[in-house]
Parts: sequence; structure tokens; C-alpha cells
Amino acid sequence: MTREFPPDSVGLVERQYFTFATDEPMPLDSGEKLGPITLAYETYGQLNEDRSNAILILHALSGDAHAAGYHSPEDTKPGWWDDCIGPGKAFDTRRYFVVCSNVIGGCQGSTGPSSINPATGRPYGLSFPVITIGDMVRAQRYLIDHLGIEKLLAVAGGSMGGMQALQWAVSYPERVRSVLALATTARHSPMLIAFSEVGRQAIYADPNWNRGDYYDGPRPNAGLALARMIGHITYLSEESMHQKFGRRLQNRERYGFEFDTEFAVEGYLKHKGTQFTNRFDANSYLYITKALDYFDLANGYGSLANAFAKSAHIMYLVVSFTSDWLYPPYHSKEIVSALTAVGADVTYCNLKSTWGHDAFLLEVETMTKLIADFLDRVVAEHKIALPKRK
Amino acid sequence: MTREFPPDSVGLVERQYFTFATDEPMPLDSGEKLGPITLAYETYGQLNEDRSNAILILHALSGDAHAAGYHSPEDTKPGWWDDCIGPGKAFDTRRYFVVCSNVIGGCQGSTGPSSINPATGRPYGLSFPVITIGDMVRAQRYLIDHLGIEKLLAVAGGSMGGMQALQWAVSYPERVRSVLALATTARHSPMLIAFSEVGRQAIYADPNWNRGDYYDGPRPNAGLALARMIGHITYLSEESMHQKFGRRLQNRERYGFEFDTEFAVEGYLKHKGTQFTNRFDANSYLYITKALDYFDLANGYGSLANAFAKSAHIMYLVVSFTSDWLYPPYHSKEIVSALTAVGADVTYCNLKSTWGHDAFLLEVETMTKLIADFLDRVVAEHKIALPKRK
Repeated sequence: MTREFPPDSVGLVERQYFTFATDEPMPLDSGEKLGPITLAYETYGQLNEDRSNAILILHALSGDAHAAGYHSPEDTKPGWWDDCIGPGKAFDTRRYFVVCSNVIGGCQGSTGPSSINPATGRPYGLSFPVITIGDMVRAQRYLIDHLGIEKLLAVAGGSMGGMQALQWAVSYPERVRSVLALATTARHSPMLIAFSEVGRQAIYADPNWNRGDYYDGPRPNAGLALARMIGHITYLSEESMHQKFGRRLQNRERYGFEFDTEFAVEGYLKHKGTQFTNRFDANSYLYITKALDYFDLANGYGSLANAFAKSAHIMYLVVSFTSDWLYPPYHSKEIVSALTAVGADVTYCNLKSTWGHDAFLLEVETMTKLIADFLDRVVAEHKIALPKRK
Repeated sequence: MTREFPPDSVGLVERQYFTFATDEPMPLDSGEKLGPITLAYETYGQLNEDRSNAILILHALSGDAHAAGYHSPEDTKPGWWDDCIGPGKAFDTRRYFVVCSNVIGGCQGSTGPSSINPATGRPYGLSFPVITIGDMVRAQRYLIDHLGIEKLLAVAGGSMGGMQALQWAVSYPERVRSVLALATTARHSPMLIAFSEVGRQAIYADPNWNRGDYYDGPRPNAGLALARMIGHITYLSEESMHQKFGRRLQNRERYGFEFDTEFAVEGYLKHKGTQFTNRFDANSYLYITKALDYFDLANGYGSLANAFAKSAHIMYLVVSFTSDWLYPPYHSKEIVSALTAVGADVTYCNLKSTWGHDAFLLEVETMTKLIADFLDRVVAEHKIALPKRK
């Protein structure tokens, strides 16, 4: 079967795997060790001769390594950030070598709680160690070493991806030329922790969860779907919900006075919840939300500015969205304030959008301009030799 | 045992019951009928001679008839709006006769899904008819008739209580002199419906729920607690959560790297969730949230202003709170706009508060002044003969 992909698509791509920490396990922030570790990753575009045009894309809670293109000609949907990665797009694959890997703790090819624990021959389940954003980034550094990249031109992500990008700046400042942190925070707020926790409680409450030991039996899909529904509300804004659904009824003309799905917004959430269980592991949801909750860049540094003290040479693009109430603009402003305090080169933009937190995936046109221009500036600043734009 | 109650308390109060619709069941908005119906209610203060000083207080989702005072000398906590009801308080019981009843569908003495269905001798469960805010108000009218009150001086409530107050104005405009609608809306938005639905899904997913037929066995407490936890997040604001909890850990110095309760905000939510199951029925939670979701005052009128067309003679006090993201100020402004369009006497105040939706229970000082002054104006306007303030 042949298929014409759009001309600005990276086309067919393959998931690759890199296994490391086989002899020497990787230390974790908890004090535990993990190994061997496999990272699933994808790459788009070509690495230039001096390996200076690499951009690491970091995914959000439910994302994976498949950021762009198609795995097979039959695929109806491309990768999760295909709108922004490809020839002529924000992350222009004619110019940049783009890498995206699934986080550890995940369930899309990287080592996580659903992986087989080599010590027991059975899935880790809750015996998988609790990980942090710092640990995710530590594992990515092994991959970047493996790819022979000394300095990343950029690390970029939205939401949890933005946290990883900021963590790169703090953990490995000498390995990063620029950071793009979109719709994110330097510290999970109590409201974010609260939403994480109710999502986890929904999973714990599912009798199929069985304290994480469910891989031989039925899965805790009801709990996971509910956690996803709760999450989904927080990714939208009141205004986008008005635009998308209003009080419209689903497949009916009038109130049914019963407990079936009646409103379109209910149907949408249920669909999203169920759909999620086809591609996501409940234990991964627990581990990744826990990593989010632990995220507090200033922790151990006294202040956020102190945390960035060795990262002042990096160039930053920080973007927030006016209707994002999960990571509201003032979270970004705190980051900008700390970065300017250490004298870093910071571009900050609070984009007007009605799309809530999801805006970082949806406001493609504005973001393309913003990201492409910023990367141009990084390239110029560091005199990176790139192929000319076609 | 004797106990000194605070001098501004209504002191010991008793729950009373009124049963009606015994011969002739009450029609419901769904087209079904319900009867007999019992309403649990309480009263504070004295009805004056011409029965013109009665104020009906309407409770929110999880409230009940016990709005003020104490049921026994051992009670550690007074009724839910005790801060605003009592001698010298916003609803001054030296001047006004205050009535509060538990809504139908509830579980604190009024007829609801946990009540015995006289036709079967067993609890209604899901055979209880789906009710609306309109039905709640219709039942209250029977109670007001029973108390011999021709015109209520005021109907007042916050959140769902505010919806009932507005519904009184639309359903029985000739029975109401003034409406106090606090932190409320004229129409449940899709985001509110979404939060309702995830709360219901949490209950449905509890195996003990058993399609509502659980009164002989274990209760769906895990599901109900989770629904309450979700709700609780929406009653707070990001700022109030920062103030109350921040990222403080509970009973520990450092991260445990495990899935126990670690952050204070998690402990608080779990406590609130568990506590709720001691006093609330899961089926009532389903029925009342469904009533909320159906609430749309303009429905059937073409516009909100049309809905208020016969209610223009009523005096209104509408209050919103700046940090209330569940019923944000613009919801109140829509009400004010419709009311001014029909020429009603409207006082509107958007109170600055960091407490989120809960502000209507917490901003006592400002509200006391606002409510007391408004009621004074209603009393003056209608030349109500009240006992002099002591």
C-alpha cells in the first residue's frame, strides 16, 4: 500500500530503542537505582556534520516518543506534535535534527511499571521505583550521549515537557544552548497536586487495580478512564467548553430525566476517557503524576533564581496562554523573573488564547512564528551551520 | 448537661418535619409525580403578626436544613451558615423569621432516593424520579403555604442555594419580595456539567454502588469520597490552596518516594472525602448534581430576561467573588444584565476574595454588612413592621 503524506510531513517514521544502564544501574533521585533501562525514541531530520543542530522534544503526561509523522501508511493520525514538527514547521526538519523519547515510567516503549523486571521475570508493577522529572531527564542524557550530541541546540516541551526542558537547564546546563518552556511551571502547585491525587485515587479505587498487580488479569480501565476525564477538564477552558459544547444535548432533543449521557460534554469526556485506556497504562499514570507532584525546581537551591545560577548562558523562550488555568501565566512569570534575575536571555510571551492548557498544542500559527524566530536567533547567536532553507 | 452558647447564636434548635402530597402527588418537571413528600426544616426567630418577616434560606449541594444553632449541647459545630444567621448577624433572628429546609432528593430528613418508597416498602434507590431545581422549589412552596406565609420577605442562598432563590423569583414571583443570590449562576455551564459528571462516574464505578441498590449492604463510600474530593478542589482557589497548604508535606520532612499521602493538600482532601461519607448518601449526590446540570433558567423562555419578565418587582442582591472559578463573576453579571433589562431593582457586588467559591461561606464580615443593609432596604420599601433592634 502506498500513501501520499502531506508535503510538510516527516512521512513514515520508525520507533527506535536504546538500552543502557545494563551493567551499572542508573541512580535515581530517591536513592534507588534502575537498570537496565530502555528508552523508545524517534528522530526526524538529519544531524549535521558537527552535530550541533539537534533539538530534544519532551512530551507531556500522556505523550510518547511519536511526536511527528506516521508509523504506517494506514495510520489515520500523525504524532502528537506533528503540527509543529516537519519541513517548514516550527521545528523545521529541513534545518534541525529532532529527537523525542518516551519518558521512563511511561508505557510506550520506555522502561516503566508495565515493563518486565529482569530480576523477577514479571512486570514491575508497584515495585518500580518512584521517579522524578530529574530522573526522566537523567535517562534522556544517556540517549543524547549515545547519539553523540555534545550540545543540544534546544530542549523544548509544553506542560510536563516544559518541566523537563527547565530541568535540563538546571541539571545539565553545559549540554543545552536554549530552552523552550511552554504552558508550564517551575513548581507543581497544591491545586495541581490535588488534581493529580484525585486521578490516582480513581485508579486505586478500581478493584481491578489490585495494588498495581493486574497485568495477568483485567485492567483498571474504569479508574484510568475516570482519571483521564478529570484531567481533560483541566486541559480545557470554560470558554473553549462553551464554544465546543455549550449545553448541547447528545443524540436527543430534550432532557431524558435519567442518568445516561445527555450532554455533549459528558459524551466527549467519556469517549476521551475510554480511548485513553487503549493506549495508556494505569500504573504509568500513577508514576508520572507523582513525578509531576514532586517537581519543584527550587527545591534544594533556596530559590528558583539560585537553581538557574549556572544556567544563565542558556537562551530561553517562555510561553504561557491567557486561558490556561492549570498552569496560569503567573507560573511562567515566576520562571521569567528568576531567569532575568540571573541575567539570562529570556523571551516571554503570554499568548491570548481561549483554548486553556491545550493551547500549546492548538495555537499552531502563532507558535510557529514564535518558535521559528527564536530558534533562528539561537542559530545566529551560536553560528550554527545549517542547511539553507529550501 | 448545660452549655453556654455564644450570645449571637440561635442556641438549641430542633429539626421539624412537614409531610404533604399524601393524597395528591406533586407533579415534577419530568412529567412524573412524587408523593408523599416529607421536608425536614428548621426555623430561627419569630414570625411577626402579619407573617411578613420570613426569610427562606436555601442550601447548597451538600447542605441541609440545619443552617444555624445546635441540635444538642454536645454538638461541637453549629449549622452550616451559623456565621450569618443569629441575633445581630446578617440574617438577624431578632428581626426575621428564618426558615431552612433540606431539598427533595436530599438525605438529611427530606424525601430522597434513600427514603422508603411507600409503594414497595424499600428505599427508592434509582426508582426515585429525577428532580430539578424547579422541583425543589415547588416542594418548598408547599412548606411556605403550610407555615401560612403569603409573601417571603426574602429567599437567599449561595451556589445551588442561589439557583433556588432565582428559581423562586421565576416560578413564584408573587410570593417573593427579594432575592439574595450569592456565588451562583442562572445556567450550569459545560465545565460545571463536566465536574458533576466525573463525580457521578466516580460513584458509578464503585462496585458497592450496585446501580443505586446498596442500602442493605456496604455503601459506595469510596466513590462518594472521590466525588467529594473532586468537588472540593473546585470550591477552593489556587490562591487559597497556596495559603492553606502550599507544597507542605504532611507528617514528614522529606519526599517518601511512595504512593502514600505525602502533601498536606492530599491529606486534607482525603479527610474531607471520608468525612462526607458519614453524612451523605451517594444516590442523593447523583440526583442533586443532575438537578444542577439541568438548571438553565432561560430554558423555555428564549432568554434570561424573558424568564424574569414577571419578576421585575422583586428586589435583588447579586454577589460574586473574584476568585470563584466555579461560578465566575461573569455568570453573576449575566444575571444582573437580564434583571436590569427588565427594570428590576438590582444591587450587584463583585467582592474581592481569595477564597474561591467557598467565599460565600467565609467572607462573613463584608457579607453581613451587605446583606443586612439590603434587607433593611427591603423592609423599608415594603414598610414591614419589625421588632426594634435590641
